[in-house]
Amino acid sequence: MTMSNNIVLGENQYGKAEVRVVKVTRDTDRHHIEDLNVTSQLRGDFQAAHLEGDNGHVVATDTQKNTVYAFAREGVGSPESFLLRLADHFTGGFDWVTGGRWEAEAYSWDRIQAHGEGHDHSFVRNGQEVRTAVVVRDGATTHLISGLKDLTVLKTTQSGFVGYPRDKYTTLPETTDRILATDVSARWRYNTNLDFAGTDFNKSYEDIKALLLEGFTENYSHALQQTLFDMGKKVLEAHSEVDEIKFSMPNKHHFLVDLSPFGLDNPNEVFFAADRPYGLIEATVQRENIDAAPVAWSGIAGFC
Amino acid sequence: MTMSNNIVLGENQYGKAEVRVVKVTRDTDRHHIEDLNVTSQLRGDFQAAHLEGDNGHVVATDTQKNTVYAFAREGVGSPESFLLRLADHFTGGFDWVTGGRWEAEAYSWDRIQAHGEGHDHSFVRNGQEVRTAVVVRDGATTHLISGLKDLTVLKTTQSGFVGYPRDKYTTLPETTDRILATDVSARWRYNTNLDFAGTDFNKSYEDIKALLLEGFTENYSHALQQTLFDMGKKVLEAHSEVDEIKFSMPNKHHFLVDLSPFGLDNPNEVFFAADRPYGLIEATVQRENIDAAPVAWSGIAGFC
Amino acid sequence: MTMSNNIVLGENQYGKAEVRVVKVTRDTDRHHIEDLNVTSQLRGDFQAAHLEGDNGHVVATDTQKNTVYAFAREGVGSPESFLLRLADHFTGGFDWVTGGRWEAEAYSWDRIQAHGEGHDHSFVRNGQEVRTAVVVRDGATTHLISGLKDLTVLKTTQSGFVGYPRDKYTTLPETTDRILATDVSARWRYNTNLDFAGTDFNKSYEDIKALLLEGFTENYSHALQQTLFDMGKKVLEAHSEVDEIKFSMPNKHHFLVDLSPFGLDNPNEVFFAADRPYGLIEATVQRENIDAAPVAWSGIAGFC
Amino acid sequence: MTMSNNIVLGENQYGKAEVRVVKVTRDTDRHHIEDLNVTSQLRGDFQAAHLEGDNGHVVATDTQKNTVYAFAREGVGSPESFLLRLADHFTGGFDWVTGGRWEAEAYSWDRIQAHGEGHDHSFVRNGQEVRTAVVVRDGATTHLISGLKDLTVLKTTQSGFVGYPRDKYTTLPETTDRILATDVSARWRYNTNLDFAGTDFNKSYEDIKALLLEGFTENYSHALQQTLFDMGKKVLEAHSEVDEIKFSMPNKHHFLVDLSPFGLDNPNEVFFAADRPYGLIEATVQRENIDAAPVAWSGIAGFC
Repeated sequence: MTMSNNIVLGENQYGKAEVRVVKVTRDTDRHHIEDLNVTSQLRGDFQAAHLEGDNGHVVATDTQKNTVYAFAREGVGSPESFLLRLADHFTGGFDWVTGGRWEAEAYSWDRIQAHGEGHDHSFVRNGQEVRTAVVVRDGATTHLISGLKDLTVLKTTQSGFVGYPRDKYTTLPETTDRILATDVSARWRYNTNLDFAGTDFNKSYEDIKALLLEGFTENYSHALQQTLFDMGKKVLEAHSEVDEIKFSMPNKHHFLVDLSPFGLDNPNEVFFAADRPYGLIEATVQRENIDAAPVAWSGIAGFC
Repeated sequence: MTMSNNIVLGENQYGKAEVRVVKVTRDTDRHHIEDLNVTSQLRGDFQAAHLEGDNGHVVATDTQKNTVYAFAREGVGSPESFLLRLADHFTGGFDWVTGGRWEAEAYSWDRIQAHGEGHDHSFVRNGQEVRTAVVVRDGATTHLISGLKDLTVLKTTQSGFVGYPRDKYTTLPETTDRILATDVSARWRYNTNLDFAGTDFNKSYEDIKALLLEGFTENYSHALQQTLFDMGKKVLEAHSEVDEIKFSMPNKHHFLVDLSPFGLDNPNEVFFAADRPYGLIEATVQRENIDAAPVAWSGIAGFC
Repeated sequence: MTMSNNIVLGENQYGKAEVRVVKVTRDTDRHHIEDLNVTSQLRGDFQAAHLEGDNGHVVATDTQKNTVYAFAREGVGSPESFLLRLADHFTGGFDWVTGGRWEAEAYSWDRIQAHGEGHDHSFVRNGQEVRTAVVVRDGATTHLISGLKDLTVLKTTQSGFVGYPRDKYTTLPETTDRILATDVSARWRYNTNLDFAGTDFNKSYEDIKALLLEGFTENYSHALQQTLFDMGKKVLEAHSEVDEIKFSMPNKHHFLVDLSPFGLDNPNEVFFAADRPYGLIEATVQRENIDAAPVAWSGIAGFC
Repeated sequence: MTMSNNIVLGENQYGKAEVRVVKVTRDTDRHHIEDLNVTSQLRGDFQAAHLEGDNGHVVATDTQKNTVYAFAREGVGSPESFLLRLADHFTGGFDWVTGGRWEAEAYSWDRIQAHGEGHDHSFVRNGQEVRTAVVVRDGATTHLISGLKDLTVLKTTQSGFVGYPRDKYTTLPETTDRILATDVSARWRYNTNLDFAGTDFNKSYEDIKALLLEGFTENYSHALQQTLFDMGKKVLEAHSEVDEIKFSMPNKHHFLVDLSPFGLDNPNEVFFAADRPYGLIEATVQRENIDAAPVAWSGIAGFC
């Protein structure tokens, strides 16, 4: 069964994953906190390490971790701008590093309300969603993708599902009033010609999150697909700096419980929230005629 | 190695765990949502099932699940009152069921802000903490424990750790300014003579949560133990209906990163948030001379 | 609403949780590996820390961690004997430490099979179950509990459920042939007068695990309760050093799928493995007339 | 900030995720069990659902779930062959379905050893690794990727890391003897011209898993990159039906504990097993001159 094809190294990247860095800004008594989980991965010429165990090109993952902490000394700013600084550093500092991928999750903290006001240095984790950012540097091109995940939303009405094809395996009854619930995972990619340095990514993030939530509420949902498209369209209409937005959203089924064996009606009041299986809806909403950027999206799970 | 001691059935309970019930109240266009994860466990005479496989006394766990859904048709109200109704039903309906344990987690949803106001029927999961409730019925006595978990808090200053004993295994340096961070798990037990029916448990919960957060902020923390006691004392002082409150709180270490190898100072600004190991502080704050209630606490992990 | 009851410190313990220690024994080229997750918690007089922030009695959790690593230098032996050494050290070394709780999870590694034999220094994580051990020292008394968790077993026949009581909420049909599946969590407590130093806990563990598995297979199961009792009885009959064994076992429902809408029969061949809700069966199998030891069991989740 | 670019639907897919199906083969008293977690996602013309809420093309995710169960009635065989049957069914049965993605995890069960032999109908979950399979159908082309994940391996010696470049952020000391540990995630893609129907994927899987384990053991590891390449090369040399294999492997750091403050040496015996951050090594080992197949890999997390 053996054959003698030449066996070679293909695509590769490596680095340090999940560097947990917390930056406190304490120039006044009113402290600020930034909380990130950073992954740094380098691409370039690492052939000798794989084939010969020669580490001459292998910037240690420990060094990448140290760099994250050292850079945080000057502040984070936004996850996006922090990752861009890392990309510039690593691709600028080592000849054989021609690109890479830098990723962050950011966790949000609110000030604790104490005696009627937000406390100066005490915080409570917000927990509503996790903010994400990815920078992919590919030679001269830099791709930037912002996003969020685990934003769980639910509407108790104004959702139905009818008109689908029926085959021999179809048993689902139609419904014009159901619960619609999902965990929003969304990633939006900026124009590659955007002035990254001049963009306020924190403001952009807050606004896009608000639009996504608002978009979820507005229309009757004939399918989660339609609601997804509504949400994405709203973002693209308001944010010219975004070229495309991808969603991966489970349809978290809430099944109406049959209470008739117990002599009770159930007019859409009592539901069983199921775990598995779940529907899974994934789609891209984009401007027409943009260039596809598969290299930017590679490695992000669950985004077709 | 065998011996002929008589082998018997000891303590036991059984039931249905993690019944996910979502109740929508839709009597007006402004809907309300209650979202629970309910576990029902019965205690009593179940000897025949264990020793002979005779299920004559085994109220099916499926029946317990159905009962949860049927009872939700009339509304939830509060996790505590819902569990008390289940306890009454099962101990009242079957001679051999002399007690049991009913537990719930409750998930909080906020209205989505859309076009400047909270939406009528669209919600976003809050995610800040999980509310908990436990009812233990033991013959004529009913124990009620409310609580919360996963409430992650952090203060960036006003915390230190000095004056601890040093032995041959002690290497930790003293510090007077560190980050203090924890996930608050707290459970408070009500007087057994409280008028459960006349108590507004939702109001009580919101107030106690606010006191816990406020208590975390107020004083310089010489140890997480002291902060824990402060938090508990605040609750007991304000809530005479509570006899004791137990805490299980990790000390989530945030280690100051040594940036000196890179020519940088680090005046409490850049931290590594560690996962494991972590300190673990567990204690009870209680009124003097109350009767201990071990049966109420049995089976709750991590509360000594 | 405030009242002036005296508010005091109740039960408490503290320490370092989840110290991940890997010990390699390399006295010959054939290495051995021991892999533990250790938690150390002290009990005694810690009042001043809670009430006044005086840490004079607070053996730092960092010191407890260091002690775990230092003790591992001399080897582990078994999780039980390792925890007993820690208990002796902490209660022997500090006057005010009158007891405590030490817990471990142990992970099992198999030698990788390479070129037909087990490799000298390369291992693969076994993953079948996690071994557990708990030592509770309470003054002069030492309780020792061994156990395992996450041992997932399933039988495809020789299980049924009939003869249960029916009330207005009962809809479950009887069945005489179903899948029975569970994750075995079991904890067995040794006689307090056992010669701990002279006991081979590794041998005892392997034998008890084998008996539990064998006990699961032997009889027709009229209820998971009966199978649980069978398994426990087998252990107690063979191991006189064990006083009682507690189980917490989910009934992991495998529902027969109704294929009749598709013109297919389903003679117990195709099942849906459900996540939640699940049955939950918890019981103690014990020797008659033993002294109950609630202090030994306190804080272990899910064991009534 | 709004602009008037035309906003359109881009790439999309949808389906039912995580259908948990257990198939028991019971034609003799010696039963067999197959345990899968199946995800089915369709691609094609679903524009009307997204833009107009017209579900005329939307084969319900519930129908996809039913189809999985119905197909299991005829047996599974291998995850790969089962997914191929689903792909044929959905692309063959609906004109507008031009492709899709079908994925499975498979869980392995061993017979319980009872009274000296493997039991006929009682099983214990193996837990060593999870087997994976993905079919991507893209018009006339079918891509097939097999794999595994969560295979945790460790070698206690014959691993080092030296010779890496040092910059101002480098503090890591070199070492010639360290623990090397990782969770192997590997995915191998078959030639698109392979006779899928005539291939024994179960045999292929077992053999490739054994080669991966053996490859991990064989050589001194100068870097995890080198070990990864060794493992992949071994698979490609022995399996001509495989075109490429991709790995994503964390470098699970085991740090030598400094015991010198306690007057102890530590000759590579006592280690702290860290959680985060971790190194992350990802690479492809492939035959030279194969056509890249990005569409096959899209959506698999962590494989560059």
